[in-house]
Parts: sequence; structure tokens; C-alpha cells
Amino acid sequence: MTWRATVLTLFPEMFPGPLGVSLAGRALASGLWELEARDIRNSATDRHRSVDDTPAGGGPGMVLRADVLAAAIDAADADQDRPRLLMSPRGRPLTQSQVANLAAGPGPLIVCGRFEGIDQRVIEARNLEEVSVGDYVLSGGEIAAMALMDACVRLLPGVMGKQASGDDESFSEGLLEYPQYTRPQEFEGRSIPEVLISGDHARVAAWRKAEAEALTRARRPDLWAARGGQKGTKSTTDG
Amino acid sequence: MTWRATVLTLFPEMFPGPLGVSLAGRALASGLWELEARDIRNSATDRHRSVDDTPAGGGPGMVLRADVLAAAIDAADADQDRPRLLMSPRGRPLTQSQVANLAAGPGPLIVCGRFEGIDQRVIEARNLEEVSVGDYVLSGGEIAAMALMDACVRLLPGVMGKQASGDDESFSEGLLEYPQYTRPQEFEGRSIPEVLISGDHARVAAWRKAEAEALTRARRPDLWAARGGQKGTKSTTDG
Repeated sequence: MTWRATVLTLFPEMFPGPLGVSLAGRALASGLWELEARDIRNSATDRHRSVDDTPAGGGPGMVLRADVLAAAIDAADADQDRPRLLMSPRGRPLTQSQVANLAAGPGPLIVCGRFEGIDQRVIEARNLEEVSVGDYVLSGGEIAAMALMDACVRLLPGVMGKQASGDDESFSEGLLEYPQYTRPQEFEGRSIPEVLISGDHARVAAWRKAEAEALTRARRPDLWAARGGQKGTKSTTDG
Repeated sequence: MTWRATVLTLFPEMFPGPLGVSLAGRALASGLWELEARDIRNSATDRHRSVDDTPAGGGPGMVLRADVLAAAIDAADADQDRPRLLMSPRGRPLTQSQVANLAAGPGPLIVCGRFEGIDQRVIEARNLEEVSVGDYVLSGGEIAAMALMDACVRLLPGVMGKQASGDDESFSEGLLEYPQYTRPQEFEGRSIPEVLISGDHARVAAWRKAEAEALTRARRPDLWAARGGQKGTKSTTDG
């Protein structure tokens, strides 16, 4: 069955947007995945098609109504077995391993928030899993949903030119990726490191591993510490 | 001077994309910010307009050439004083405080990677600051750049309906946001918490703070721990 993402949004015209171009766009055009963007406003029931109201207890902004969003979810989601995500800075941070899990499944239903937020009761009643793409605040969940889908789609079978491309990149071993170089050999007085043009595959691999480790330690002590905990199991698969 | 983002990409047709709609789109249309998307390929020098080559030392994928990207940066960036960012999973994680700093500046030059990566020498020679939107891998930097710009634009003066909307949200106090509720009062047997309809502003504020703290502690022990370190200074500005 084709991997299929359903997005609930107040701005369906944003989709596919950047996902209609390049890698994800070619895959979409060739049927390797499907994208459905549904307008939450179609589930509004009053004559003004209103979807939001002021926050109970006061405060700025508007809150998406539980009843309207629940109706939109129910109308979209015949298949109860797939993940239901809510893009939100309150969520658990998205990781590459969660991306891989989502890519291996049937494809998620993704709710995009707007305004100050979404009525908490629909999150609970419809069992939405809050997912955060990072520790910053967007004007809505749409670009976050695009990031999540793009990360998933590139892992789908047949999407990347070489399957191997996913094996040797940031987070694949709990490390940031080593630095890359390509022609020209000389750029503004800077040369490609000698080891990379040595033709000695073992030296290249050792250099890349050392660079990836040094970069991760310097730039992401949190990732480095997390990897330290797994060192015993990791080392059996290394080199 | 108007806040202005310049994006260097191989897919300028992706822009403004979702940034042309809703909050960011209205702000763009009314001149509250400017967006320029420039095609890196215009700086290619050979007859095939090639921008990439195979990685030195071997491996899958293609690497963006240092000389081509340097020429694209030089052609775009008359103003040397603004931040130059490279969207990359190897970068330091973007935070809301970095977003606020970027929003307060002239607006960044943003390089979007594609392929396996970018020649390390241009990162160094052109002093690109690598920024990551999260611990997952995208097919390119374009959606990451959109996330960064969206986060910045909503903080620009005049963009959000009420300035106050930015003060009481996730990360503004090192906490995730408290749960929100709105009408209807009853939804599938679930009621809005009594305190929120009590009209007692002090009780509402205390409840929201307790909920935000409980959520942050449960879901983001890393944020909670970071906040603990600042408790001494924070408490003087609290309630």
C-alpha cells in the first residue's frame, strides 16, 4: 500500500508547496507517496464557518475549537490504525528514528495548529500525539508538517537514487556527519585533505569517523553523551 | 530598514511557497518583510551549469561545489554585516532566542544545502553558520529555511495582531505552553476546567503556571533542567 499523508489545515493551498518540487515532488508525481490536504474549515457548523474562539480564562489569540477539529479528524480518518500527529512546540522533539518509524508505517494523519493553540480536549479525545520539530515557535503547523513529511518521504523505497545515501549521514550512528569535499582540488588556497585523495579506503573511513566524533563532541555534547551510553553495543558494529 | 531574507537554493521556485500565505504571506504582501530567492545554478561556470560533484574519498551522493556556492554568496551578499546561515543537520540547534536575535537584525542570508552536503571549504571561507532545525534529515535546506523565516517573521513589528501573542507561548519562560480551552463548555462529556471560567485572574494564572511546569517536567526534562539553572534570576520576575 502506498504511503499516504493526510494533513488537516486551515490553509490547504499551502500543499504540496515545496513538497511538489525536487526529490519529494518527483516521488509524489510518480506515485511513490500520496498527499491529501483537507480544510478544517469544512467541518465548521455555523453560518460563519468559524473554527476558533477566545481562550477560556483569557489571554491573547484564538483557540481552535475541539468540536470542529474532532469532526475534521473523524471525516478524514477512516483508517484508525495510523499515527495521528499534532505539530506543536509543546510536543516531544522529532528524531530521525521516529521519522524512520513513520516512514515504515502507512503514513500519518497530521493536524496543523494555528492561533494560540488547540483545545486540549480534542488532543485527548482523539489521541493526538504532539510532535515538535524544534524549540522555536512557528505561525502554524504547516511548515512543520512539511518538514516531517519530507524527512519521511526521502526514506521511502525507491525515492532516493541510492539506498545507501541514507546510511551515512547525520544521526545514522548518533553522530553528526563528517565534512565533505569535492572538486576543484584547490579553492582559494584551501586544498582537499590529503587523506581523501589517497585512495586508501581504510584511512578515509578512519578519518571520517574521527571527524564525525570530534564535530559531535564539540557541537552537540548532548548527542555525544547519549551515544556514550550505547558505546558497548555500538562498538561491535564499528569498523 | 525592512527585514530581508535572501535564500540561496537550487529550487527558487519553492519560494515563497507557504510563506506566501496566512500570517507571513500577508506580512510579505504588505511590505513588512522581503524575501529574495536566488538560484545557486546561476553561478555555475561550465556549459552544463553543473553545481555538484562526487565526494572526495568516495561515498554516495553528490557534494555542492565550493567555488560555485562561493560565487553565489558573493553575488548575493553586498551587505557583509548580516548573518550568513547554512541550514544543515550538522548545525547548532535553532532556538527561540536565536530566532528573536535574527528577527531583531537586518535579516539573514540563508544557504540551502542539497545532495550529501556542501564542500567544507566554502563553509569556512565564507564564514557560514550552520543551523539545524532539528535532529532529523531533510532532502534539502529549503523547508528548514522556511521554518526559520516563519519563526522570525511572526516576531517582526506589526506582523502579529497583538504583540502580546508572543509573550505567553512555548519557550518564552523556558516552559512549554499550558493547555488551552475554548467554547463549547462541554465537548463529548469533557468540560473546560472550572478554574478557567471562574473569572479569578490570579487563580487562572497560578493554574496555568502549574500546568506549564508539570508539562515541561514530564515531557522535556532537558528544558526543565536548563530552567532550574536559571531559577534564581527567573523567580524575581515571576508572579
